[in-house]
Amino acid sequence: MRGLVLDEAGPRVRTDLPEPRVEGEARIRLHLGGVCATDLELIRGYMGFRGVLGHEWVGTVEEAPDDAWVGRRVVGEINAACGRCPTCRAGRPTHCPHRTVLGIQGRDGAFAERLCLPVENLHEVPDGVPDEAAVFVEPLAAACRILEQVHVRPGDRVVVLGLGRLGQLCARVLALTGARVHGVARSSARRALLPPSVEAVPAEQAADLPPADVVVDCTGSPDGLRLATARVRPGGTLVLKTTVHLPEPLQPTPWVIDEITVVGSRCGPFAPALRLLAGGLVDPRPLVTARYPLSQGLQALSAAAAPGALKVLLTP
Amino acid sequence: MRGLVLDEAGPRVRTDLPEPRVEGEARIRLHLGGVCATDLELIRGYMGFRGVLGHEWVGTVEEAPDDAWVGRRVVGEINAACGRCPTCRAGRPTHCPHRTVLGIQGRDGAFAERLCLPVENLHEVPDGVPDEAAVFVEPLAAACRILEQVHVRPGDRVVVLGLGRLGQLCARVLALTGARVHGVARSSARRALLPPSVEAVPAEQAADLPPADVVVDCTGSPDGLRLATARVRPGGTLVLKTTVHLPEPLQPTPWVIDEITVVGSRCGPFAPALRLLAGGLVDPRPLVTARYPLSQGLQALSAAAAPGALKVLLTP
Repeated sequence: MRGLVLDEAGPRVRTDLPEPRVEGEARIRLHLGGVCATDLELIRGYMGFRGVLGHEWVGTVEEAPDDAWVGRRVVGEINAACGRCPTCRAGRPTHCPHRTVLGIQGRDGAFAERLCLPVENLHEVPDGVPDEAAVFVEPLAAACRILEQVHVRPGDRVVVLGLGRLGQLCARVLALTGARVHGVARSSARRALLPPSVEAVPAEQAADLPPADVVVDCTGSPDGLRLATARVRPGGTLVLKTTVHLPEPLQPTPWVIDEITVVGSRCGPFAPALRLLAGGLVDPRPLVTARYPLSQGLQALSAAAAPGALKVLLTP
Repeated sequence: MRGLVLDEAGPRVRTDLPEPRVEGEARIRLHLGGVCATDLELIRGYMGFRGVLGHEWVGTVEEAPDDAWVGRRVVGEINAACGRCPTCRAGRPTHCPHRTVLGIQGRDGAFAERLCLPVENLHEVPDGVPDEAAVFVEPLAAACRILEQVHVRPGDRVVVLGLGRLGQLCARVLALTGARVHGVARSSARRALLPPSVEAVPAEQAADLPPADVVVDCTGSPDGLRLATARVRPGGTLVLKTTVHLPEPLQPTPWVIDEITVVGSRCGPFAPALRLLAGGLVDPRPLVTARYPLSQGLQALSAAAAPGALKVLLTP
């Protein structure tokens, strides 16, 4: 079968991949995949991953240990936990030290005609949610994760720094709380994509915003953390959604003096994300920049890495 | 009057200070002062402070706008807030941007025969609490602050890194929750000071501890934050109690991947700290290393900066 694979020589499209088959797991036929910044980082060497790329996807179950799943349209959580270690038993399977992660760590991903995942990772997609929206469930769940970790109150002021793929979704989800949400980006095109529930702020005007209760750094830039620290109020919360490599020392002294809470935030819950899509509360489809077939996987990766690009989709 | 003053030339004892008198504030006669790491940092230029040093103290009210305070033995919160700005009105007076801070910022401190503070900052010391314990209320309150910010559960495993003045108090307070508390220090003398409620761990054995739910960095060392990050479990909390200057880049990537919450923690509530002392739940007196009269203030500062020193007290 066809798939977009990362190996020692870099990413390439292969047409000779064996059909995947994993004992005890469901096999899914891909409808759509979505390219994420993490995919681009993996190509640059992050995590040392080798295998089929891709962890944002929607598809149809072809085979499953439980026949009831066959034929259903699904999305799937990307962390496959062992279920038996102390971390799993403590209710934190997404942090299982033995976990594999779809297309990221020890497990082939979704950018292929077929993929495998445990049935317990799957969520059926409601009929009213089109594939073009369902493919956003994984990053939308990561945006929902913020609200699992931080109590954002309706009277709060929130600043989202960076309006790339993830920042756009975080801003939309945070605005659902009733909080006043400012979305900050240099690019006017990205600001223009914000829904009416989010106030667009050009990056050069961010310093004029009043101190915020919550600042979410989605910049993926070494500058983001410094800027976020400068924009949060004393006693406020700073959420780190993107991983960055800082070229300069980060000094945590202001966090102590101003009693800032810094929250690292990663994968989130799929069920609420699907409810937001099914209820029409978040529409991610305007974020699609381009769509490529798997056979043009390399062009898709280039397009996703291009300045100004947002979500690039892959079709089988 | 006599006092220990920091000016452009450094710290020095002066005997020609005017008796302090601040309209609307109480005037207090010093019984005991305690030297804190922050005093030593101020001398190195932190905050650019000039004036009478000292913010840990116990004394007796000599004059007050409200006569009922006169003659009472008191301790006092160090932040004097404006009470009128949005931060004060939002219930965060310790972060008031217009605040002065006793012996730290815009306000003469306690290492003098007399000091002034607003009456609303004062707390009467219960009769059963001797001066030698009451002088610890400020740092003990800072230790209690952790429990205001972080829900430490009885089943948790907690690691306190660094058993200096503040680490000793934090370990004692955290052990009151029923959590299993490990106090980590290089110095065997400091470990030997721990009460039975805290398990002493030599620094070279810290890497063998299971990942902790909560790690409190009281090292004041650039290494502390890296070590703390290595010792906290995924989803756990890292509390920063000391300000440090990091010579190398701190990379927050592990905080995102492992969803660590980092909590900057500073000043705390005096009333609970006084209750812990009055109830005999924490006895800080074994932490006193030395005692000097104000006239030997410079020797006191040297003694507090010496390796192995813990709390150095000043008498008028």
